[in-house]
Amino acid sequence: MSGIDYRNSGVDIDEGLRAVDLMKKEVKKTFNSNVLSELGHFGGLFKAEFPGMAKPVLVASMDGVGTKLKVASLMGDYSTVGSDLVNHCVNDILVQGANPLFFLDYIACGKLEASVAAQIVTGLAKACSENGCALLGGETAEMPGFYNAGDYDVAGTIVGSVDQNSIIDGSAILPGHKIIGLPSSGLHTNGFSLARAVLFEKAGLSVSDHHPLLGGESVGEALLKVHLSYLSSMKPLLAGNLVSGMAHITGGGIPGNLIRVLPAGCGALITPGWNVPPIFKLIKELGGISEIEMRRAFNLGAGFLITTAHPDEVTEILLQAGEKPFPAGEIVSGDSVKYSGGGV
Amino acid sequence: MSGIDYRNSGVDIDEGLRAVDLMKKEVKKTFNSNVLSELGHFGGLFKAEFPGMAKPVLVASMDGVGTKLKVASLMGDYSTVGSDLVNHCVNDILVQGANPLFFLDYIACGKLEASVAAQIVTGLAKACSENGCALLGGETAEMPGFYNAGDYDVAGTIVGSVDQNSIIDGSAILPGHKIIGLPSSGLHTNGFSLARAVLFEKAGLSVSDHHPLLGGESVGEALLKVHLSYLSSMKPLLAGNLVSGMAHITGGGIPGNLIRVLPAGCGALITPGWNVPPIFKLIKELGGISEIEMRRAFNLGAGFLITTAHPDEVTEILLQAGEKPFPAGEIVSGDSVKYSGGGV
Repeated sequence: MSGIDYRNSGVDIDEGLRAVDLMKKEVKKTFNSNVLSELGHFGGLFKAEFPGMAKPVLVASMDGVGTKLKVASLMGDYSTVGSDLVNHCVNDILVQGANPLFFLDYIACGKLEASVAAQIVTGLAKACSENGCALLGGETAEMPGFYNAGDYDVAGTIVGSVDQNSIIDGSAILPGHKIIGLPSSGLHTNGFSLARAVLFEKAGLSVSDHHPLLGGESVGEALLKVHLSYLSSMKPLLAGNLVSGMAHITGGGIPGNLIRVLPAGCGALITPGWNVPPIFKLIKELGGISEIEMRRAFNLGAGFLITTAHPDEVTEILLQAGEKPFPAGEIVSGDSVKYSGGGV
Repeated sequence: MSGIDYRNSGVDIDEGLRAVDLMKKEVKKTFNSNVLSELGHFGGLFKAEFPGMAKPVLVASMDGVGTKLKVASLMGDYSTVGSDLVNHCVNDILVQGANPLFFLDYIACGKLEASVAAQIVTGLAKACSENGCALLGGETAEMPGFYNAGDYDVAGTIVGSVDQNSIIDGSAILPGHKIIGLPSSGLHTNGFSLARAVLFEKAGLSVSDHHPLLGGESVGEALLKVHLSYLSSMKPLLAGNLVSGMAHITGGGIPGNLIRVLPAGCGALITPGWNVPPIFKLIKELGGISEIEMRRAFNLGAGFLITTAHPDEVTEILLQAGEKPFPAGEIVSGDSVKYSGGGV
């Protein structure tokens, strides 16, 4: 009876080391003068220096890519999920006024292919560089029996900082403030289980299929569009103290996310009419999904919302930053998020 | 044609909210005066105050539980994997001299059961409390099609702090320093794919089976023993500046982990002879696994190694802390980790 070793148990340590070698260069590019550690140490080291902040506060958030990864797997393209994850996390702490410092990733799969893991981490590193944060560490786990061949789960943690006096928690929001939206690129990283159920299972489409509603784009291309980071567009607004609240529109849609920052006594009246990417219309039509369910599951073209007492100035600055802001409604007296009309 | 909604696509938002409700109380118990945020915000807020540190440095690490989760799933007991993960992460940054500040978790599954997610998070919260760190945030993701029914992947990020002058990176290690080991409880969180392949697939055992080598314990009980945290035992040694280096023995075993802290010119001669938990003997015997493979895959009873110029004092302090330290070898001139003898 022959012996058994780690490789024939389904875990290939050498392939793991090859993946690390492939990632190293890209990860190192994200390191700035605050990073004290070399790769390969147990933990990543980052100087806790916060120049110009009277009362520095760390802001941390963890998230995953969700089943958008299934689309990446079907497309055989893991180059963009890194940006999806980093940009998602950057936006999540941006709503509290925080600037990212560093990021750590977790990649898990059933059978590690060094090239795929390297493709994911390269994407993470690229997005970290774009958002000015260091990719400080990570874990790549090969877990045979847990994941289907070709499937990779990807999650990550972001840590940023904000001066305590500059934390934005929505308490400054007042009735009469305008709500300004920033366009999403598509689904970003939310609603993919519903989208897959409708497009692939119910309608029988595949990622390479086309549909008149999508113009020249394939279904997979429309679904895989990268989650946008709003950090660089928002920085001048935050510096100018022009914003009373922000919401990153993820799972739960506008109703589920805007409500999280509204203070007692404040509701919102959303006025649809902005450009809704065609992929949402396709999902609604093919799935026979109600308007209310669409609003709860998807961002519907509004990736980020800003509440402000200075809508003209905010709009002007966002236009200068290259954004395409749109009016999305108004803060009203109340305690809920309502819509003035339809639709997708 | 009936419509489709998020619930029949496999994602149950209400079950997710129930899980969050069940977790809240336990998570709140971990909050200390440094935590500024309430649950439900986008990111967790933690005061960046480092009293007594001249040059504070953040130390961050991310890890998963690996396929120990399969054993938890087979046992129907997710109460201990939280401690496994938190204690693993605490040890990972402890080797650099860091004290934990906060932790964030990621839980992913195919079909969310609120009670299971709550059991996992309760375990995470308990371990966070024991290690004096806040459970600052987390993400629970339901990803239909990604995970088998009953399977949960659990990963987490720890962030701690250390004064730059107190960082332990192994550069103070010199030939002649003694290596002292601290007992593991068993496999901790490494080597489970190999252990499962041997015990369940090759030998055909189940988690409820018994074996003479294991005494009264079932196979599942022996495998599921909780990963130990060495933080409280190590604190007096670090305060007394008695340690030149530390290694947390995880995947790669002693050879793969001790080597990471040895400076140029230093190797190690490991002298086996400490108590090896019987589960390792069982795996070796039933799998026909070589000694060298066992050493690479498992901790073999040595969960944590300390290098020191003051072995007697270190041993005395560890005994007073309730540990059972054992001599594990010596630092020698060289560049590799060698063994003076066998065996498991």
